[in-house]
Amino acid sequence: MIEKRVRRILSAMEQQGLKQMLISDPGAIYYLTGKWIHPGERMLALYLNTNGNHKLIVNELFPITEDLGVDLVTYCDTDAPVQLLAQFVDHDAVMGIDKTWPARFLIQLMDLGAGSKFINSSPIVDHIRLVKDEEEIEHMRKASLLNDAAMEEIQAAIKPGMSETEAADILANIYNEVGANGGFSFHPIIAYGANAADPHHGNSADCIAKEGDCVIIDMGCIHNSYCSDMTRTIFLGEPSEHQKEIYDIVLQANLAGIAAVKPGVRFCDVDKACRDYITEKGYGPQFLHRTGHSIGLECHEFGDVSSINTDVLEPGMIFSIEPGVYLAGDVGVRIEDLVLVTEDGCEVLNHFSKELKSK
Amino acid sequence: MIEKRVRRILSAMEQQGLKQMLISDPGAIYYLTGKWIHPGERMLALYLNTNGNHKLIVNELFPITEDLGVDLVTYCDTDAPVQLLAQFVDHDAVMGIDKTWPARFLIQLMDLGAGSKFINSSPIVDHIRLVKDEEEIEHMRKASLLNDAAMEEIQAAIKPGMSETEAADILANIYNEVGANGGFSFHPIIAYGANAADPHHGNSADCIAKEGDCVIIDMGCIHNSYCSDMTRTIFLGEPSEHQKEIYDIVLQANLAGIAAVKPGVRFCDVDKACRDYITEKGYGPQFLHRTGHSIGLECHEFGDVSSINTDVLEPGMIFSIEPGVYLAGDVGVRIEDLVLVTEDGCEVLNHFSKELKSK
Repeated sequence: MIEKRVRRILSAMEQQGLKQMLISDPGAIYYLTGKWIHPGERMLALYLNTNGNHKLIVNELFPITEDLGVDLVTYCDTDAPVQLLAQFVDHDAVMGIDKTWPARFLIQLMDLGAGSKFINSSPIVDHIRLVKDEEEIEHMRKASLLNDAAMEEIQAAIKPGMSETEAADILANIYNEVGANGGFSFHPIIAYGANAADPHHGNSADCIAKEGDCVIIDMGCIHNSYCSDMTRTIFLGEPSEHQKEIYDIVLQANLAGIAAVKPGVRFCDVDKACRDYITEKGYGPQFLHRTGHSIGLECHEFGDVSSINTDVLEPGMIFSIEPGVYLAGDVGVRIEDLVLVTEDGCEVLNHFSKELKSK
Repeated sequence: MIEKRVRRILSAMEQQGLKQMLISDPGAIYYLTGKWIHPGERMLALYLNTNGNHKLIVNELFPITEDLGVDLVTYCDTDAPVQLLAQFVDHDAVMGIDKTWPARFLIQLMDLGAGSKFINSSPIVDHIRLVKDEEEIEHMRKASLLNDAAMEEIQAAIKPGMSETEAADILANIYNEVGANGGFSFHPIIAYGANAADPHHGNSADCIAKEGDCVIIDMGCIHNSYCSDMTRTIFLGEPSEHQKEIYDIVLQANLAGIAAVKPGVRFCDVDKACRDYITEKGYGPQFLHRTGHSIGLECHEFGDVSSINTDVLEPGMIFSIEPGVYLAGDVGVRIEDLVLVTEDGCEVLNHFSKELKSK
């Protein structure tokens, strides 16, 4: 286990009076052990107890050959892993549960009475993961540099006649070429024309780029287990005055969000900086989503940049700032960067130009 | 909603005395509504009540433009969707919960008292999904035919000097070429030599095929939302007598499993047919996993072919038969087909040769 991280978790548990908890999210387990285990539908849990009696329960199909510094409890496909788990936890203490743990396990554990009460204890882990350490920051910088390089290539490749699906396939190869060793951090959203106005449009093999389209390219890669995520919007051919106006509004909102970031301000203040600008310009209702999300080992981590998140920024936090304006059936523009909170402001992890570009 | 399927669910709920349940798994929601919604970390739930008061709760970022035949309840990123849900459910009746529902929602719903008791009600949906209807069977046949065609191509492509990662990338293109419209049904396992002896080995860019390797190719595609899944093991160069012996044991076990399938026998009987053969030959402990899994909209569905599943086979069920023998550091062989239970036996959905092949 990575001692300095585990110590922070245990100390937060003690402060909150929580004796025991289960961590099941593979990303959180990697964060604490340095080992990725992807168990699919099979049960995987790291049990932490402030008395030091930690256990990692894992199906023997995922053999762990290295010493992770934690007792292993293995089971096979014909065992009942939740019953196994219930045997060594403290039935008389509150049990912290991972926010991602599926109901099929949780209901069974509750039925076995393996805890006096069950609470969602992920906020403990999430708040610690929110502030990246030096090693993580270096990985995040590198992943975003690779994403900058890949953006250059994919913008050069997209042209009228190409389908959205085709562009996404090309991007997969580009990430290999630039050296990203973990593939996509999420399936890229490459949306042309009217589809760009739907912020969660899936790529379509039937949607073909044509002259005059705006193109939203929202993409990220994983490198050394850490994620990048960036969006740019370009135009195929000369944009109309109206399209230029929308582009500029979103760009200014993106810059206003970045300018607002420094320790001591709240996530909701960053959201407000972007949102107020877009609202002033008359497109508030067309900015359909939160301003951004925290990012690290997973592309979407705890820590929304939204109007309801009053948590305060600290150096080491990394999140996206991605305002957008979506005019159904007409045009959609989103511009996204990742920022790292520094001692007195922020460092933007993406360096790819945001100037209006038509090709 | 797809009425015939919803009716079967409601009728099973009535039989079991369950008044209300939540379905959150995107596959199950597609099964009942014909609509894929992939909400990521955001809450999505289809609430069914035997009184007919059904609701679909969905974030407005995933706009539903068609009439799904169910009342929509939409929310935005700054709303509290679980509280919204708690407003219209019956607090005094047992609440059925989807096995996949994450703890972050379930614990909140429990804290709101939105149900007199909480049970895992997925078995109701799972037992119905286990038996495929005619339309589903046609999709499954087609997906496996495409998988047969892709196996031909990938076997031709793999040669000494190629990395496991490279082979998987080539396979992605092959699936596009043969016309599979949904990509991989799972990330393919292409494992050379010693890695083949690890049944859940992830592909490695550093592992390069060499003369004398056995190669496990475990792969599947999605077509029209339905999954295929097949494994073949081939040899680069002439296999040793020992490798031939292992291959033949696994092949005979695969055939014994297929021969055991007919209505009325139990899943565990099919597992036993494969396992007994391998055990007789002295490799029981090296057959590390269950014999197979049910498959349909998802690659791994409810209905394990394992020694503890005493459910009885019925016409329309589709599952994998995939015995394997894994000799650490030496050789691994797995041979997998999908079978459809028919009135008097089974139909094997894969047609790709299982004869020992070296190239």
